[in-house]
Amino acid sequence: MNFISGNETDGVNEQLFELEVAGEQLTGALWYPARADGPRPLVLMGHGGSQNKKFPPLVARAQRYAQVFGFAVAAIDMPGHGGRRGAEQAAQFGAEIGARLAQGQPVGEFVSHRMTGLAAQAVPEWQAALDALQSLDFIGAGGPVGYWGLSMGGAIGVFLAAAEPRITAAVFGLAGLFPGQEAMAAAAAKISIPLEFVVQWQDEMVPREASFALFEAFGSKEKSLHANPGTHGRVTNLEVENWERFFQRHLGTPKVF
Amino acid sequence: MNFISGNETDGVNEQLFELEVAGEQLTGALWYPARADGPRPLVLMGHGGSQNKKFPPLVARAQRYAQVFGFAVAAIDMPGHGGRRGAEQAAQFGAEIGARLAQGQPVGEFVSHRMTGLAAQAVPEWQAALDALQSLDFIGAGGPVGYWGLSMGGAIGVFLAAAEPRITAAVFGLAGLFPGQEAMAAAAAKISIPLEFVVQWQDEMVPREASFALFEAFGSKEKSLHANPGTHGRVTNLEVENWERFFQRHLGTPKVF
Repeated sequence: MNFISGNETDGVNEQLFELEVAGEQLTGALWYPARADGPRPLVLMGHGGSQNKKFPPLVARAQRYAQVFGFAVAAIDMPGHGGRRGAEQAAQFGAEIGARLAQGQPVGEFVSHRMTGLAAQAVPEWQAALDALQSLDFIGAGGPVGYWGLSMGGAIGVFLAAAEPRITAAVFGLAGLFPGQEAMAAAAAKISIPLEFVVQWQDEMVPREASFALFEAFGSKEKSLHANPGTHGRVTNLEVENWERFFQRHLGTPKVF
Repeated sequence: MNFISGNETDGVNEQLFELEVAGEQLTGALWYPARADGPRPLVLMGHGGSQNKKFPPLVARAQRYAQVFGFAVAAIDMPGHGGRRGAEQAAQFGAEIGARLAQGQPVGEFVSHRMTGLAAQAVPEWQAALDALQSLDFIGAGGPVGYWGLSMGGAIGVFLAAAEPRITAAVFGLAGLFPGQEAMAAAAAKISIPLEFVVQWQDEMVPREASFALFEAFGSKEKSLHANPGTHGRVTNLEVENWERFFQRHLGTPKVF
């Protein structure tokens, strides 16, 4: 893991990093309290499709988590995103979704299958990043790790949380389970950590039934589905506040900010 | 409104009261900070079927709301409950539900129609109680009023909130909307206040689809559906905490506890 640039804002360090995984340069960002000393909870944030590790609302939450809760927060560019190889296919895929939506066609199943394919690459990348992050003395190994991801970040997160026992609590949402997605159903069933799951009641990309099917499939005993009015991505700030409480409850507070 | 007995516990007054409405003695309970001075938010709590105004978890929440948030909280016995006239029919109805559930028959529609009937009596009773409560100097008129009710208390609450503009925020849940319930659908559509709506994912009395239909029918712009695993009535403490935040957010804090 190479730190390639950094800056401090309001007591929070932001470090961009690179990490070689399977012959490709993974690019990521890490936020942590500037005075961080010793191990602390880590939150992995999986950005949505067409976004990247520096998507402004993600950065704002990461900075707040570091500043107010003392967490470390990391985001990586997903395959084909943030200047990584495969941008052309990602753009093509985005255009195809746009065209289908413009024609009033359902896109959920099409999107969901693509996400399953992406997850096969993204999961080992997240795991390699987690190895590197946990080797840093201000994060440490063995501590609580949260995952947050909606839409593409949600679908990939389901596969990651199923494969990665170090993740101890997760927020997913704006993602669904469609008929025939046995791999995703099996991944969801394997998950037993506390979950919060976000649904947009008028989601034009993920039908409610697919959201409900994914929520149903999770093996977790503690799982809460929160649904609010609005279209895909227009998640209310009430949920942003709920995620903070969720991660505080499940990840705790570091001894030293 | 006649206060018939009272006591103080941990800085909270509990007063039982009677109020004549349409020739019948309504029985209720009121909690408020012992040192209450001047107007404050009021929360009305609608108990569930077979319960009454002194149902222990309701009392525990009422005491906490008064002690920690400075609210006044009131509960009244619903028709046929808590020693009121009609107990025999209520018991018969409860036995009928039990028998149907034991035979694996759906009960939601049967229950929901009965609740609509009860609401016709309960709504004017709640309104008379609200008149009397708002005439007390430590509650006052014109301040924020919340309503909380699940199951029977939820179904009745939908009709009450539709009829009563003084109610400014409500928590409903464990209640559904079934085909043909036009009066309830119209009541739900009339409601425009912020709502939190609780669903139990394995509710044996209210099918998910009926819960979703009721949530969909609410006219409110701000409405959040929270679903958790479990059967009817087994609501997680996480939601109990969410209700506290919801009422604090929407009802505010009194000037003087």
